[in-house]
Amino acid sequence: MPKWTDIVRGLPASVPFVGPEAQERALGRPFIARLGANESVFGPSPLAIEAMERAVGEIWKYADPENFELREALAAHHHVSPANIMVGEGIDGLLGTLARLVVAPGTPVVTSAGAYPTFNYQVAGVGGVLHTVPYADDAEDPEALVAKARQVGAALVYLANPDNPMGSWHGAQRIEAMISDLPEDALLCLDEAYAEFAPAGTLPAFDPGAPNVLRMRTFSKGYGVAGARIGYAIGAEEVIGAFNKIRNHFGVNRVAQAGALAALADQAYLESVIESVAAAKARIARIGAAHGLQALPSATNFVTLDCGRDGAFARALVSELAQRGIFVRMPFVAPQDRCIRVTAGTATDLDAFEAALGPALGAIR
Amino acid sequence: MPKWTDIVRGLPASVPFVGPEAQERALGRPFIARLGANESVFGPSPLAIEAMERAVGEIWKYADPENFELREALAAHHHVSPANIMVGEGIDGLLGTLARLVVAPGTPVVTSAGAYPTFNYQVAGVGGVLHTVPYADDAEDPEALVAKARQVGAALVYLANPDNPMGSWHGAQRIEAMISDLPEDALLCLDEAYAEFAPAGTLPAFDPGAPNVLRMRTFSKGYGVAGARIGYAIGAEEVIGAFNKIRNHFGVNRVAQAGALAALADQAYLESVIESVAAAKARIARIGAAHGLQALPSATNFVTLDCGRDGAFARALVSELAQRGIFVRMPFVAPQDRCIRVTAGTATDLDAFEAALGPALGAIR
Repeated sequence: MPKWTDIVRGLPASVPFVGPEAQERALGRPFIARLGANESVFGPSPLAIEAMERAVGEIWKYADPENFELREALAAHHHVSPANIMVGEGIDGLLGTLARLVVAPGTPVVTSAGAYPTFNYQVAGVGGVLHTVPYADDAEDPEALVAKARQVGAALVYLANPDNPMGSWHGAQRIEAMISDLPEDALLCLDEAYAEFAPAGTLPAFDPGAPNVLRMRTFSKGYGVAGARIGYAIGAEEVIGAFNKIRNHFGVNRVAQAGALAALADQAYLESVIESVAAAKARIARIGAAHGLQALPSATNFVTLDCGRDGAFARALVSELAQRGIFVRMPFVAPQDRCIRVTAGTATDLDAFEAALGPALGAIR
Repeated sequence: MPKWTDIVRGLPASVPFVGPEAQERALGRPFIARLGANESVFGPSPLAIEAMERAVGEIWKYADPENFELREALAAHHHVSPANIMVGEGIDGLLGTLARLVVAPGTPVVTSAGAYPTFNYQVAGVGGVLHTVPYADDAEDPEALVAKARQVGAALVYLANPDNPMGSWHGAQRIEAMISDLPEDALLCLDEAYAEFAPAGTLPAFDPGAPNVLRMRTFSKGYGVAGARIGYAIGAEEVIGAFNKIRNHFGVNRVAQAGALAALADQAYLESVIESVAAAKARIARIGAAHGLQALPSATNFVTLDCGRDGAFARALVSELAQRGIFVRMPFVAPQDRCIRVTAGTATDLDAFEAALGPALGAIR
């Protein structure tokens, strides 16, 4: 056997998320409605589709490792410099590189119990030690995260705003206060994957001079190209520059670059997606309410439905829905695991969800 | 500033390869012929293009993190089990994960001076200590690599067969002997990126029971989808399984999966590419010979032309060719850096190369 590193020897072969395809193979049939991964069923802009189809014709070429054009466009969009932007293989890929930048074996890292598991996976993968604080009122708790970071001397703190899996969010002022209160040397990884769906006043202004915050954005949610694997980080030039020491320079797909660039340019389409998502969320809430499941407020492209029982009940519901062709997921940790999480779907998707929910609940009640 | 890890603090912001796009931006115009990155100018199978265009329509979905269908197809193609195959974001991505699996700070690693720099970059990125042996007769030296591995107690040994940047290769028997002679606990990373171009008798049979060899293959060269970022490793089930402890499970692009699957299925197209490459290589050799540059034998999709002078001369030639719109690269280390490396091009590409070579040489002679 190879000489595995000590870190690897101590790790299980874990998977942050089992893909719906694995469930489909186990079930022996495809899902009718794919509402579990917070993908955008409304897809990307038709202009992005066109740009990606064109890019397929040039796929014999490696993509520009500097992601120059996309970084220029993102810089203009966000009113920062291209030197403040790092493009990577989705937020998941960027989290992996970030973990390697600031987390060594034994380094303390702080997150919320039940927050994004891929962050935890990437931290564990470099030997970091995770410290968690509980959610408060189904939301991540910025003050508790800061207090814990101070207590353990954290090098890295994770907060998603808006939050996944609960859909909750904090206003920009509370996030800015959190950043001010961070202990010296602690870097905040502010995951804003759902930024495009957040109400006005949620996202702090960019402060490209601040070396203690790294903002994570993605084209997987609002822009609808989850399968392209492309996201970006915004931060101080010195922090962004550090990624160049260890990142996989040629990691981003050429089709993804073209799609992201075209999707970003079509803000009108993004607006239409935001409207469709809002309508779908309202319908999910109505469907839930008709069956006694209460929708929590959501600033994302999904609705977290409170089933009013325990984790075992919600898990059974997720399973019964899967049996009926509906793919949804749920929070991992109590008491949030009393909920199921349903992604905004098309009318057809939600018809199928509506048709399945009653029988699924009936089967376990 | 964030608390960078000790490894990161000690690393320069290095880039294994500057992309041709950066050179084009510096030159202020696009290259006429892109012959520097060993991409396949002949592109992928038309069936793969079609499959990728179709996949664009489903790009709102994350790709299957298990790469199930592609692994099944690759297993059938290579007569191994899907459990022997790990798909990743190109060989570069797989090398990064591999380095994290077996290289900790201070771990000795062995490669050839002047071999693939991205391997070195990934090893340095996890704090490994590189030990090198020189090329022998413009080829990597398996026996010297084994001896060095034994001497330093290497956890990981790198060999490319066929070799990049020299195009040289060893027969399967010599590679098999190398594997037999490896010190216990050393893992051979056998980079076979150019496998499809190698003459019969070059590639050892797969031995899925051997835990000390990991074979790296890619869809970037023969299959013509470099911009898709998709490659795979073949090895013992336990070695392949270890990737699941730390890899970015959702790292592969959906379009890339579809393209790879379709490209693999069209072996007739691959054969036509191999023929086109052979003809292009013969022409590159003739063009070189007409200008006093001698083609080295090549089992790849490029020709290494011996300029018969030193590294400064070859560097000047690469630069003069770039000024004339021709993108080529060259080996990094003496005495191999007396050469330039020219990728098999289309007839139009090679017309441009032919037209530029004389004037470029004239400018420096």
